[in-house]
Amino acid sequence: MIKKRLYTPGPTPVPEQIMLTMAEPMIHHRHPEFQEILASVNENLKYLFQTDNGVMTLTSSGTGAMEASVAEILSKGDTAVYVNGGKFGERWGEILNAYGCNAVELATEWGTPVSTDTVIESLKSNPDTKAVYLTHSETSTGTATDIKAIADAIHKHNNDIVVAIDGITSVGAMEIKMDEWDLDIVVTGSQKGLMIPPGLSHITLSERAWKLAEKSDLPSYYFDLKAAKKALDKNDTPWTPAVTLFIGLEKALNMLREEGIENVWARHQKLADSIREGCKALGLKLLSSSPSNALTAVYVPEGIEFKKFNSILKQKYGITVAGGQGHLKGKIFRISHLGYYDELDMMTMMAALERTLVEVGAKIQVGNGLLAAQEVLLK
Amino acid sequence: MIKKRLYTPGPTPVPEQIMLTMAEPMIHHRHPEFQEILASVNENLKYLFQTDNGVMTLTSSGTGAMEASVAEILSKGDTAVYVNGGKFGERWGEILNAYGCNAVELATEWGTPVSTDTVIESLKSNPDTKAVYLTHSETSTGTATDIKAIADAIHKHNNDIVVAIDGITSVGAMEIKMDEWDLDIVVTGSQKGLMIPPGLSHITLSERAWKLAEKSDLPSYYFDLKAAKKALDKNDTPWTPAVTLFIGLEKALNMLREEGIENVWARHQKLADSIREGCKALGLKLLSSSPSNALTAVYVPEGIEFKKFNSILKQKYGITVAGGQGHLKGKIFRISHLGYYDELDMMTMMAALERTLVEVGAKIQVGNGLLAAQEVLLK
Repeated sequence: MIKKRLYTPGPTPVPEQIMLTMAEPMIHHRHPEFQEILASVNENLKYLFQTDNGVMTLTSSGTGAMEASVAEILSKGDTAVYVNGGKFGERWGEILNAYGCNAVELATEWGTPVSTDTVIESLKSNPDTKAVYLTHSETSTGTATDIKAIADAIHKHNNDIVVAIDGITSVGAMEIKMDEWDLDIVVTGSQKGLMIPPGLSHITLSERAWKLAEKSDLPSYYFDLKAAKKALDKNDTPWTPAVTLFIGLEKALNMLREEGIENVWARHQKLADSIREGCKALGLKLLSSSPSNALTAVYVPEGIEFKKFNSILKQKYGITVAGGQGHLKGKIFRISHLGYYDELDMMTMMAALERTLVEVGAKIQVGNGLLAAQEVLLK
Repeated sequence: MIKKRLYTPGPTPVPEQIMLTMAEPMIHHRHPEFQEILASVNENLKYLFQTDNGVMTLTSSGTGAMEASVAEILSKGDTAVYVNGGKFGERWGEILNAYGCNAVELATEWGTPVSTDTVIESLKSNPDTKAVYLTHSETSTGTATDIKAIADAIHKHNNDIVVAIDGITSVGAMEIKMDEWDLDIVVTGSQKGLMIPPGLSHITLSERAWKLAEKSDLPSYYFDLKAAKKALDKNDTPWTPAVTLFIGLEKALNMLREEGIENVWARHQKLADSIREGCKALGLKLLSSSPSNALTAVYVPEGIEFKKFNSILKQKYGITVAGGQGHLKGKIFRISHLGYYDELDMMTMMAALERTLVEVGAKIQVGNGLLAAQEVLLK
């Protein structure tokens, strides 16, 4: 008997009770029982994003909400700065270019976050910048960016600039306070910290962002945020929503609220620390100089073939991790501790990691990873 | 004990075994077990649409696929003719206008389909027309349009014109043969004839449509069909797909394939006939002069308040039907026979309808509806 265990940074595991709730008989989305679900979801999303702004839920992957953050906000030819430190930062640039915006790229080495100074320098060189697009937790590298400090510096530099955050693997995992930090756009996806299957994305806008949105001349229809906001205010959606996923979302948000958002953040911090310390104690090298609490990117030990390592981990231990993307393909693996994980899940992961490393012939001291992880968790 | 029974034209009921399959532990979308699901889905969708063209599945409601049918195909200022005979025909116009196309509206009375002559006349008046947007089964009125005859006439008139079909409540319910009928774009949604929850949409393009798409200058990213097609050919998706819905879709398509598409169409014809004849035998008036086999739109009897009727049907009999949209709100109700319904489901519906009508004081002959429906089903 081999149990299947998912340790990928999206999809993340979904609590069994939520899976089963989603299997209840189908209901119609324009009827009171669904409106009640939407009311609860909408209220709890505000808590999750730490905002008084309404949080709109779209039936799409997170990329849809990212597209809306551009197409609904900017106009053709508008200048926008974006940070490209991995696959998802790169995506901001692709979207900006697809819509004919003047996209100013701030490229950083994969695994290294952008500095506040770099962002401000670029704004000085591009004084007509309307918006800055950042990635809170870059999933391709497991790197956290200090969006609080950067947003603060941007608004001190020019209080009209919209700061948009890809919070896809950060919301529900890492501290993020939209209103207190004066963020303008925050997006996330359902299959990450929200612990439900993929298919929903979430987006919220500050007053500053809505003001810029008023001027936007880019075409859109399905992702029309004005229509989404109008519907939101009536606990409705403009188009047919992914009903079962909303039903799951209601339960998942209740779980997060019951745990308390500060406790959710602290749990992710502890789980991340245990995996990082465990890996280091095994002599493994971490990719990121500023690791995200959502996932840990680890270099495959020298002389070890990723494919073989991954195949044993999956076939023999039932564990699915994520590989590397882009130029890191085959060079790193990524362990998720994002969403529905507890402390013992980290020990399970570490046990399988040690055994797999032994089997592929890596020179490690068995038990060192477990011990280091356990010590973190015991604190 | 009151069982909940859904008779709305989307969401439609989902087979319990499919709901439970979707509740299995989450898997990752870039791993072989999911690729196998995609391969099966992609093959069976071609069968469902009766086409050799690849059918792309997007994580969005059907409206997303409708938007792609415009934004991926046309260029700014392009002339397109669309038929507006209800809420969903109207949507084609809204999308065309959102993208700055020259949208030529052919308005028809709700419940009456457009004639082939009207379409051809409009093409003569607008010789630069690049595409015609039609609705096969207009869900707001339960009206079927003879898209086969119209597509044929359009292509005889000008073989370059792209014929786009909203098949959202027709695919998997009514006869539609993309290749044989020389249709260029067909879209549908998951929560209709495909018998799974909402959250996926499907779109397929002919060679003629891809040729026009090559010239398209409208911006897009999430709905980029070229990216979707490239991924499709590798049994992949460009963005994170709604994994659980794909898992359900595989099972649902297997059920449809096992039944055989001609039998699926014949079943819908028979179910539709039974409801129509049952309603007529009760003295009820149908809205449409060309009824769709997906749903039946029925006038609320004179002197009866829709709200009261609907409330009894729902509270006392657990049955959810759809009300009217737009100017038909409160004037009609719509009974779905689209998707996961069998013959006895129609008798259940008819029994509840008769009882509810009696309770609201409508003058009907109890049993007449049941008898007429039964006679159709016995044929």
